[in-house]
Amino acid sequence: MNITIIKAKSLKEKPDPKALGFGKHFTDYMFEMDYFDGKGWINPTIKPYEPLELHPSSLILHYGQAVFEGLKAYKSQEGKTLLFRPEQNFERLNISSDRMCIPEINVNDAMDAMYKLLEIENDWIPTFEGTSLYIRPFIFANENALGVSTSAHFKFMIILTPVGAYYSEGFSPVKIYVEQKYVRAVPGGVGMAKTAGNYAASIKAQYEAKKKGYSQVLWLDGCEHKYVEEVGTMNVFFKVNGEVITPELNGSILSGITRNSVIQLLKSEGYKVTERRIELKEIFDAADKGELDEVFGTGTAAVISPVGELATDDKKITISDGKVGKLSQWLYNELTDIQNGIKPDKFGWVKTL
Amino acid sequence: MNITIIKAKSLKEKPDPKALGFGKHFTDYMFEMDYFDGKGWINPTIKPYEPLELHPSSLILHYGQAVFEGLKAYKSQEGKTLLFRPEQNFERLNISSDRMCIPEINVNDAMDAMYKLLEIENDWIPTFEGTSLYIRPFIFANENALGVSTSAHFKFMIILTPVGAYYSEGFSPVKIYVEQKYVRAVPGGVGMAKTAGNYAASIKAQYEAKKKGYSQVLWLDGCEHKYVEEVGTMNVFFKVNGEVITPELNGSILSGITRNSVIQLLKSEGYKVTERRIELKEIFDAADKGELDEVFGTGTAAVISPVGELATDDKKITISDGKVGKLSQWLYNELTDIQNGIKPDKFGWVKTL
Repeated sequence: MNITIIKAKSLKEKPDPKALGFGKHFTDYMFEMDYFDGKGWINPTIKPYEPLELHPSSLILHYGQAVFEGLKAYKSQEGKTLLFRPEQNFERLNISSDRMCIPEINVNDAMDAMYKLLEIENDWIPTFEGTSLYIRPFIFANENALGVSTSAHFKFMIILTPVGAYYSEGFSPVKIYVEQKYVRAVPGGVGMAKTAGNYAASIKAQYEAKKKGYSQVLWLDGCEHKYVEEVGTMNVFFKVNGEVITPELNGSILSGITRNSVIQLLKSEGYKVTERRIELKEIFDAADKGELDEVFGTGTAAVISPVGELATDDKKITISDGKVGKLSQWLYNELTDIQNGIKPDKFGWVKTL
Repeated sequence: MNITIIKAKSLKEKPDPKALGFGKHFTDYMFEMDYFDGKGWINPTIKPYEPLELHPSSLILHYGQAVFEGLKAYKSQEGKTLLFRPEQNFERLNISSDRMCIPEINVNDAMDAMYKLLEIENDWIPTFEGTSLYIRPFIFANENALGVSTSAHFKFMIILTPVGAYYSEGFSPVKIYVEQKYVRAVPGGVGMAKTAGNYAASIKAQYEAKKKGYSQVLWLDGCEHKYVEEVGTMNVFFKVNGEVITPELNGSILSGITRNSVIQLLKSEGYKVTERRIELKEIFDAADKGELDEVFGTGTAAVISPVGELATDDKKITISDGKVGKLSQWLYNELTDIQNGIKPDKFGWVKTL
């Protein structure tokens, strides 16, 4: 793939690495490529980060045909750029696209484009502890027409944003509200795709849980409201009586890359890990019997998110005495050390640029 | 509300009224208004129809927080502009917005903006039989940030597109595929909202049905896959043994304005109309017994869409001998005559500008 590179006239000042937040600052350049029916993906270009010209009739503004990914680049102590299982993100992007009738991209071309962009933006990868450069590849429908059908034109882009430490005030457990009214996804729907509408659909539940004092919601299955699915925008794990369990990929759960890595990591350490349907009642019962050791979420943003409290309107359980569980802490250290190149990468997960 | 009006330097040539299609041509002007947290809705402006400048990090491109409406303006034989129950659309927009955590608009202000825009674009309302000016009000999240939460900035717009006759080759029945794999919506989800993601989620089923030779899909409930919900982007009605039945508004079905009008119209003519849960099996059984008189969809685009065939992978039924049913024809004539100002409007549905 021949990428056209358009130089910026001037470069931005880098933001304070201690106050980055998430997705607030964007780098000097972005990658862009267009798809047209009959032409395929054309015009791969790296150019200055700037506003797009979108027609008011662009399909994305009306029918939300879009998919995205999120991954992070880290700087090793030797100054190398490290990526964590990046091919998984681009393969998953194609899985999401298939569900949403979006044309697939060539994974190698997309990765090459990302590597080139990261090379140009090397100075934007922050080195302050806990920080990283968040990479957002995304595709959206961009035909100017109002008929409800798949678009004849799509745009694929990669933008970069330096992000702060997720746990800037220390690695600490969160309180989770068990959502029993709103539903995120259902088998046959689009829950397994990283598509725009899933996130829009989650905002109200998240907003109401925050008002009640919780940081995230635990989603239950969309039909019986009995089985555990995800927590906020993360996958969820439970350690019960020494065994680690997590909901199986049933078509309405996102196939998390951190989820998969945690499963591999735990199995390699000799843990029994089971992917299966998990009833909420089972978790509450285990807590009552003193058998619920730990609960944690897994995702790109937080890596591991320990859960200290789980509550419905009727019942509340405290987990690991509201502290960070041992396994959560170990997984967090282990994964972030691999991602940052501090510990040896025995799984071959890290791509060094 | 004081609307700023920015004049266009030149006006476009009007398209051929006999070859308009749907949502392909846009008028000279559009309405735009911005919302910012702490400021509310500000800067109402009518300005030339032109591309928007959207940042690549605009939330709409990533998380699909958006709602829309669709209604039509007709020209009466006296040259007046007619709208069909427009307040219903703006009230429903607020209902959709509430579910999607989008700030509500003032219905009267929004209607005034639409009236003003229609006044300026009066020449764009086509008069050729079956044509109309389709009005698309929509709101989308426009904050430049990547955190998954409600946006601090939204844009409300109204754009106009002259549309052709839906039945350009005559009012005729369609073949419908009963979708048993993909799911559109589930109670607790966002099925009752006219939000972007619902339409993106429907594209694949629609695409696969088309490949099999059907024009639309009949959606079943998301959990048991047994109960009838909607047909394509329309509500659905069945005439069984003289009684008209339609799925009740259960939270996963869009509350159609044409649906509501059809119910009122039929009741005023003495028909028994029942809104209730309808099992697919019941419809197939009625067909077997010769008691299924008619099936039709209702929506803004087609008004009435008669169904001539309904098929699963295992079973196929022909309805009204594959012809347009008497009631479908009557409803189509009655409604379009009211909308076009040909018949008296005893329900007070038509707004004359």
